[in-house]
Amino acid sequence: MMDLEITGRKAKAAAPEVAGLSTELKNCVLGKAADLLVESTPAILAANAEDTARAKEAGMAEGLLDRLTLTESRISAMAEGLRAIAALDDPIGNVSEMKRRPNGLMIGRMTVPLGVIGVIYEARPNVTSDVFGLCFKAGNVTILKGGSDAVSSNTAISGVLREALRSCGVTEDALSFINDTSRETAKAFMRLDRYVDLMIPRGGAGLIRTVARESTIPVIETGTGNCHVYVDESADVEMAVRIINNAKTQRIGVCNAEESLVVHREIAPKLLPVLEEKLKEHHVELRADSESAAYLRESVPATEEDWGTEYLDYILSVKTVGGIDEAVAHINRYNTGHSEAIVTENYENAQKFLREVDAACVYVNASTRFTDGFEFGFGAEIGISTQKLHARGPMGLAALTTWKYIIYGNGQVRE
Amino acid sequence: MMDLEITGRKAKAAAPEVAGLSTELKNCVLGKAADLLVESTPAILAANAEDTARAKEAGMAEGLLDRLTLTESRISAMAEGLRAIAALDDPIGNVSEMKRRPNGLMIGRMTVPLGVIGVIYEARPNVTSDVFGLCFKAGNVTILKGGSDAVSSNTAISGVLREALRSCGVTEDALSFINDTSRETAKAFMRLDRYVDLMIPRGGAGLIRTVARESTIPVIETGTGNCHVYVDESADVEMAVRIINNAKTQRIGVCNAEESLVVHREIAPKLLPVLEEKLKEHHVELRADSESAAYLRESVPATEEDWGTEYLDYILSVKTVGGIDEAVAHINRYNTGHSEAIVTENYENAQKFLREVDAACVYVNASTRFTDGFEFGFGAEIGISTQKLHARGPMGLAALTTWKYIIYGNGQVRE
Repeated sequence: MMDLEITGRKAKAAAPEVAGLSTELKNCVLGKAADLLVESTPAILAANAEDTARAKEAGMAEGLLDRLTLTESRISAMAEGLRAIAALDDPIGNVSEMKRRPNGLMIGRMTVPLGVIGVIYEARPNVTSDVFGLCFKAGNVTILKGGSDAVSSNTAISGVLREALRSCGVTEDALSFINDTSRETAKAFMRLDRYVDLMIPRGGAGLIRTVARESTIPVIETGTGNCHVYVDESADVEMAVRIINNAKTQRIGVCNAEESLVVHREIAPKLLPVLEEKLKEHHVELRADSESAAYLRESVPATEEDWGTEYLDYILSVKTVGGIDEAVAHINRYNTGHSEAIVTENYENAQKFLREVDAACVYVNASTRFTDGFEFGFGAEIGISTQKLHARGPMGLAALTTWKYIIYGNGQVRE
Repeated sequence: MMDLEITGRKAKAAAPEVAGLSTELKNCVLGKAADLLVESTPAILAANAEDTARAKEAGMAEGLLDRLTLTESRISAMAEGLRAIAALDDPIGNVSEMKRRPNGLMIGRMTVPLGVIGVIYEARPNVTSDVFGLCFKAGNVTILKGGSDAVSSNTAISGVLREALRSCGVTEDALSFINDTSRETAKAFMRLDRYVDLMIPRGGAGLIRTVARESTIPVIETGTGNCHVYVDESADVEMAVRIINNAKTQRIGVCNAEESLVVHREIAPKLLPVLEEKLKEHHVELRADSESAAYLRESVPATEEDWGTEYLDYILSVKTVGGIDEAVAHINRYNTGHSEAIVTENYENAQKFLREVDAACVYVNASTRFTDGFEFGFGAEIGISTQKLHARGPMGLAALTTWKYIIYGNGQVRE
């Protein structure tokens, strides 16, 4: 088991230096890291080959193996990612809400880094550079712990990133990579609350649950999305079909894909046959309640379990309701706080849905697939928060900052 | 041990109704609660007399007994507090940062309630109505657990508050009071993460540490303040003495009081004799390092422990430094992330101090005593957060809300 006490102490000690770096120097590091990643392609590919050889031997599934595998173009995409982060505005040092109080004090909020951010992730080696880039641009020190499958690749990549720090004269401790992949070390990392300000798990639902349960450091939960589209009585059927088709089939393995259709009883006879025809192109299986099944040629009876399931597959559950209130109640009962949409031409129902549905992103007449930092205009994304504290929805650079109040006085004392 | 499962489930079930209440209805409840508190003064005083009798028998210290004791005027102050909260702007439903994306989507942030807020507090019965008022105005359901010393008073007060809810036609479950004061129940409350969105401990450092350690619900830590005033070489001595005297002696038992003076070597000979003279009026004990002790008539040698101690008493530690960098390093090492001040006439040093000191509130030329929701213009305060996530510094109504993204489309799908 690695001595994380030292890692933690070094990270915390580096935090003031990293927090105080100029935008220019931070961008220098990011640009240098991009150049070095490209230059080091052969070495990174060699390290990656070790990982993939081990994985094949262990019989890793095709999809996971693909995520693990690096290529020249994937490495250059990582480099481009770092350059794109360099091009973003520096999120640190912005002062807002500066107000003059009656006693003459000027009180405002200044954005500052969080400090030390820990990230636990699984088998995608590109996360190593993506996450470092975002945390570093926001003035934070990063401690990374990747999965055992990618340990050689991650060690190589983090070595390159540390070299970029060094060559720009910045402390290497701005990035630590924990290459011990034992469970005990993972546990110790999650308890490093004296040194780490925030923990972000990136990966599947299992990883996120474990970290949320085990960590004594505040955690931002990202990921799971049991997303619904509700088609209201007054919806434009053509628009509804287009949105559902997009939300369900444009990419199935993602958290902002639709998993469940909620449909108003009065529009079901018009909507469902057309929708079934469209979804057939992708062989989508429909799991329907008995009322909606009556309008479908082919469907599987939905069970209680279906309403709560994130399929991440070509499967869609279908639930009939009698109106907006029933739709909202159903969605608020089963959703995971991610993305929910209504398709409607009714003004009141649109507003009601926006107000009452409890989720990070609530849409009127658009696909849930837009829940994404790039689509929201943040220029980057570290994940999509499905919790309510600190960050909610797509997390860009701003989610990796906090603020302090700054107060300008001229001798004021309290009476 | 009380069955908190039922309490939690009822609270969560009530959350959508409370979140959707109109401002008018929320203010109706707050006004009614204020009226009923005043009307119920005899019953509340009788309940409080039970608490104080028990406390006297148990030999409670004078100061604590004073906090526990209610009077007619204290009850009317509680009522006034609720009326003041009613007069504040509703923090829910505000939409900001609405922007049009290139694809025509309109994306903005709408403030929404957090959901269910748990509060654990000690022996001040007024917290019962203050905290309920703030959480309720922000559209949240509240579950309260007060200390055993005040259980009769708290039961009476929460009964009155629930009566106010009922008489305005709002679910009583908007407020639950846990009157079982056993340790097991407290522990179970802190693990009610399926139902409670946020836990706020209000009380001494011991309580806050326990809740932060034991709770599986996200906690906002409030309170401890090891606050410094740094007097820079260029400071106006008269202003420095005025600010230190205020920060140290205006009220000693509060978290925003000064506990430590950091003084530049070059100004120490001018500042310290005048300051000592002034602080003598309040018999402040000075715990000084050897360099500053040379300029003081009377002082106690400071130990390492003194730099990290929140005295909450007429005691001030004094540390000499050679410049702004040493001052910032010392403060960042020992402070508790609360409030820090510099007294200076030097522009660069003022800006450097604001940027580099890591605390919720950083002051130039003003007393740390201003860290307070009312002084900041929030109209109310539920505590002062000394952590970095979600809320930092004085927490007004806004700290009891979160947001969701609302997105207006006209049929957009993702390409």
